[in-house]
Amino acid sequence: MTNHTVKAFDEELGALTHKVNEMGGIAEAMLVEAVDALVKGDKVKAESVVRRDKSLDVLQQEIEDMAIVLIAKRQPMAQDLRHVMGTVRIAGDIERIGDLFKNIGKRVRATDATMVGNRTLSGIQNMSRMVQEQLKMVLDSFSQNRPDLAREVWLHDGEIDALHNSLFRELLTYMMEDPRAITYCAHLLFIAKNIERVGDHATNIAETVHLIETGEPLTGPRPKADETHYTKGKAE
Amino acid sequence: MTNHTVKAFDEELGALTHKVNEMGGIAEAMLVEAVDALVKGDKVKAESVVRRDKSLDVLQQEIEDMAIVLIAKRQPMAQDLRHVMGTVRIAGDIERIGDLFKNIGKRVRATDATMVGNRTLSGIQNMSRMVQEQLKMVLDSFSQNRPDLAREVWLHDGEIDALHNSLFRELLTYMMEDPRAITYCAHLLFIAKNIERVGDHATNIAETVHLIETGEPLTGPRPKADETHYTKGKAE
Repeated sequence: MTNHTVKAFDEELGALTHKVNEMGGIAEAMLVEAVDALVKGDKVKAESVVRRDKSLDVLQQEIEDMAIVLIAKRQPMAQDLRHVMGTVRIAGDIERIGDLFKNIGKRVRATDATMVGNRTLSGIQNMSRMVQEQLKMVLDSFSQNRPDLAREVWLHDGEIDALHNSLFRELLTYMMEDPRAITYCAHLLFIAKNIERVGDHATNIAETVHLIETGEPLTGPRPKADETHYTKGKAE
Repeated sequence: MTNHTVKAFDEELGALTHKVNEMGGIAEAMLVEAVDALVKGDKVKAESVVRRDKSLDVLQQEIEDMAIVLIAKRQPMAQDLRHVMGTVRIAGDIERIGDLFKNIGKRVRATDATMVGNRTLSGIQNMSRMVQEQLKMVLDSFSQNRPDLAREVWLHDGEIDALHNSLFRELLTYMMEDPRAITYCAHLLFIAKNIERVGDHATNIAETVHLIETGEPLTGPRPKADETHYTKGKAE
């Protein structure tokens, strides 16, 4: 590319990056709102989370459209192409994170449970705090071009999975103790799973950031520890 | 584009379409295998499903790479661009369908339940058959360029959701009747949810096919009927 085109490309890529940062901010706010709605049984707040997801869908579509134009016009190669594709991929992960928060909001909006002070919720709040930190760190790694932060996030994914495993088992025990808790805890199982999957998407983003910045994938097997598949069950 | 370029573009788009058809065939086979593994408690078959997902990831990446080259080289506009982007989007939906089957395989691989003849499974088999038909129909709508078939699929998504609602409630009653069934039924809740989500992805594909073929989105609100969010629960 000529110098003139390089400058134009950098500006266009910058615009793309800016929109991803905007998506990230919305996602972080949705996480706080969704968990707050759950803990307080606040259906108005839950509804607000559900509606907010739309803005992420719109931004993701804009990013995709802008990327296509960028690729067609500038025909970026190697590092530049990797950067554009990585940015599109990250936008996709944030959009799916938003969907997961929307699903949590839908469940809270529809459940009649009284949740304040409920012991089943402290585990979920705990896991949400960890995921909140992961999400902030990985979005920072992207906006500040820091592969070291991306690696940090990648290494910590296992802790969230371990917490999810414990929470899963804990919820099962509440269900076994009291049949009246079954329906509500079934919803919490899904909410907990959604939060664990937000953590997975944060780790996807970390892998993409690392690849964009260094050209190298994060090495070694991903530190997965999600064992809820391995909770044995007997059929009646 | 010149005639020479139009011909080259058509061939390259054809290659892209061919790979998506290949992904579709693998996904359809994985559905049959995953449900069979579940019903028979066949862990070897479950493992086979888990491994098979990799081929979908590889194909999706190839389709994405080919699409980028196609866009950069031919700079397609309007209908042609819509066709390329739609094909990439469909590949993404099929890749996520594969992930859902892989998750089912992982749960079956890890669960110790004896499942043959288990009444909790007939609802899941029922829903799987419906999803199997949806998947076949939507993949045909893509490979045969038939927006009418896409509309059929779109209209029927509500039936799958209704079936999922009933199945969800049914599973809750088994859990309430017998605490020993709780763990196993919790896994079935997730498996049922995964199958319902495969149905959603099939409907996504239908919307994309319709857009590619007619330039118009499928009109009216999507016939959603998933009410499992609305199953009320009381906290203890």
